[in-house]
Amino acid sequence: MVGAGQLARMTCQAAIGLGIGFRVLAASPTDSAALVCADVVTGDYTDSDALLAFARGCDVVTFDHEHVPGGHLAELEKAAADRDGPAVRPGAAALRYTQDKLAMRERLGALGVPCPRYAPVTGLDGVRARAEEWGWPVVLKAVTGGYDGRGVWVCGTPEEAAAVLAHPVAVFAEEHVAFRAELAALVARSPHGQAASYPVVQTVQRGGVCHEVLAPAPGLPAGLAIQAQRMALGLAAELDVTGLLAVELFATETGLVVNELAMRPHNSGHWTIEGARTSQFEQHLRAVLDLPLGDPRLAAPQVVMANVFGAGSPDIFARYTHVMAADPGVKVHLYGKQVRPGRKIGHVTVLGRDVASLRDRAARAASYLATGNEEGV
Amino acid sequence: MVGAGQLARMTCQAAIGLGIGFRVLAASPTDSAALVCADVVTGDYTDSDALLAFARGCDVVTFDHEHVPGGHLAELEKAAADRDGPAVRPGAAALRYTQDKLAMRERLGALGVPCPRYAPVTGLDGVRARAEEWGWPVVLKAVTGGYDGRGVWVCGTPEEAAAVLAHPVAVFAEEHVAFRAELAALVARSPHGQAASYPVVQTVQRGGVCHEVLAPAPGLPAGLAIQAQRMALGLAAELDVTGLLAVELFATETGLVVNELAMRPHNSGHWTIEGARTSQFEQHLRAVLDLPLGDPRLAAPQVVMANVFGAGSPDIFARYTHVMAADPGVKVHLYGKQVRPGRKIGHVTVLGRDVASLRDRAARAASYLATGNEEGV
Repeated sequence: MVGAGQLARMTCQAAIGLGIGFRVLAASPTDSAALVCADVVTGDYTDSDALLAFARGCDVVTFDHEHVPGGHLAELEKAAADRDGPAVRPGAAALRYTQDKLAMRERLGALGVPCPRYAPVTGLDGVRARAEEWGWPVVLKAVTGGYDGRGVWVCGTPEEAAAVLAHPVAVFAEEHVAFRAELAALVARSPHGQAASYPVVQTVQRGGVCHEVLAPAPGLPAGLAIQAQRMALGLAAELDVTGLLAVELFATETGLVVNELAMRPHNSGHWTIEGARTSQFEQHLRAVLDLPLGDPRLAAPQVVMANVFGAGSPDIFARYTHVMAADPGVKVHLYGKQVRPGRKIGHVTVLGRDVASLRDRAARAASYLATGNEEGV
Repeated sequence: MVGAGQLARMTCQAAIGLGIGFRVLAASPTDSAALVCADVVTGDYTDSDALLAFARGCDVVTFDHEHVPGGHLAELEKAAADRDGPAVRPGAAALRYTQDKLAMRERLGALGVPCPRYAPVTGLDGVRARAEEWGWPVVLKAVTGGYDGRGVWVCGTPEEAAAVLAHPVAVFAEEHVAFRAELAALVARSPHGQAASYPVVQTVQRGGVCHEVLAPAPGLPAGLAIQAQRMALGLAAELDVTGLLAVELFATETGLVVNELAMRPHNSGHWTIEGARTSQFEQHLRAVLDLPLGDPRLAAPQVVMANVFGAGSPDIFARYTHVMAADPGVKVHLYGKQVRPGRKIGHVTVLGRDVASLRDRAARAASYLATGNEEGV
């Protein structure tokens, strides 16, 4: 797996269970997955030679993030085609749609998938013109390099748009979608075309960053859930995805709209470690290794996951005593990351029946782990 | 953790989730846990210097097996008392009762815990005398070094007993218990005295080796289950166990009888990885680190675990395709061990409601993984 963040770390745990050899390409020996993996190569994924050297001896190469340059992916695939390199899953043609958001919008539009209105823009006049049509705020998105709320700017005024355009980053404009809820549909697809769909979840964002995931999405009409699953399964097939595909969606007054795509384990699927019969991390491994997929069904009527963000004190471990004593049923996952304000450093999961009480328990545990108190819960 | 077998391997997975640094002392770099752990020290646990060097820098030392010599444990504890070594959990005084089965019988007898009748024996005449009292078969047990069916000989005749006595191994005699079922009660206890009990399970042995675990034990009257849990909790407190205590029991016509003790994660608890809210491996870590214990309750009405034993072909991985396709709900755990006939190389777990169908599913998957067919199911 190229990249050694928390997604690689949790994939490493799944690989241990399956008895599968697992190697990560880490930028640093202190990366989240590098701390726990038995087979770590330190190197730079933007260096093509380092990437090819890392891949040598592997059967399959997959990814913890979407930042490997397309040219490097093509080189990896050429090595695979020449039979002296591992299979690349997902492949460059699929990954392109997670790397170039404008290309993604164009492709989804061509496939007839409902998306927000969007337009390439080069200057403030272009943004103003879109705002006249769509109204303010206008969303500006980095064409490449954005993830997890980064590279997305909701601009309420021309001045805010001008500030974004002042950065040397290629952006495009999207209408700001007034949504009832944000959803995520997570599916897996294997090279031989088997696919499996997890229950559709609701994600709760603050400041563009996912804070909570509710599985299944509470109150979501069955028809919409099925539509979201079909959309994700259809996209996985159309884009020839191998491994996981997470489709982030807006549920609006008039139906579902696709927001973003990711082709890897995804924050909206962390709940599956305890909450589904097969975790997304095991499922991703099964899919990219072309093994039959596992049962994606829920292990409890309702599951809630809450992210833990770094706050003041770095001594997270000392807070375990309180959190574990207060709620013996909460499952804590810490990523071994240095605590920095706002950085995702772990997550908690609770299983049960009543979504309100589960959200309260998850929020209390996550807040206490982050800050040492339960403020704001 | 001293020792790097599959118990250490699965404890390593739990440590990753909790964000706890985890080091193993492995005999070889190809040991099950050494293959997957990021912090492996290779050394010999019977070498006191190697053990002390391994422990340096740890906060707590715990064990994958019961074979560390008592004198070495005492040295580790002396270093802890001198404040230049880690805490030893469980301690030498408790571990003694897993290392010396005769001492265990004497201590349990003094505590009034029901046990099989037993007696020290030195020669065949002694065994004959016991057989006159108890009837044949007589069980001969190695005083030290036995585990998992090793060091236990069920002797149906004086000739069989003579063959055992011919080995240079100190043994004692026990009556052969006619049991209805074999049970296991698994509890955890922390240094500050908190304890948690898992549901009592039934273990199904063949040739003295555990093949299946049924959680909870089907048809076990609630009164007997509570009695077994109380017995295990009482023993954990009396023997000052920290970490897990597994009590293997016989359910007889006249009540419960203690067979064996183990103070570590135990094969009868592998089902807890998916089948309980807190796995035994996480629970052991929480207990030895003096963290509050996790919820030990079942995650499904019925859970069945079946061990996978090495058989003919070493190419286990090729059988994944069949096993995963045949039953997407079965959870496979492989330990990365070299396949040798009869060696435990993994286990499978299934969750559901009906014990008969779960046993059938688990047995088919385990058999296919072992042999490439479902013979004998």
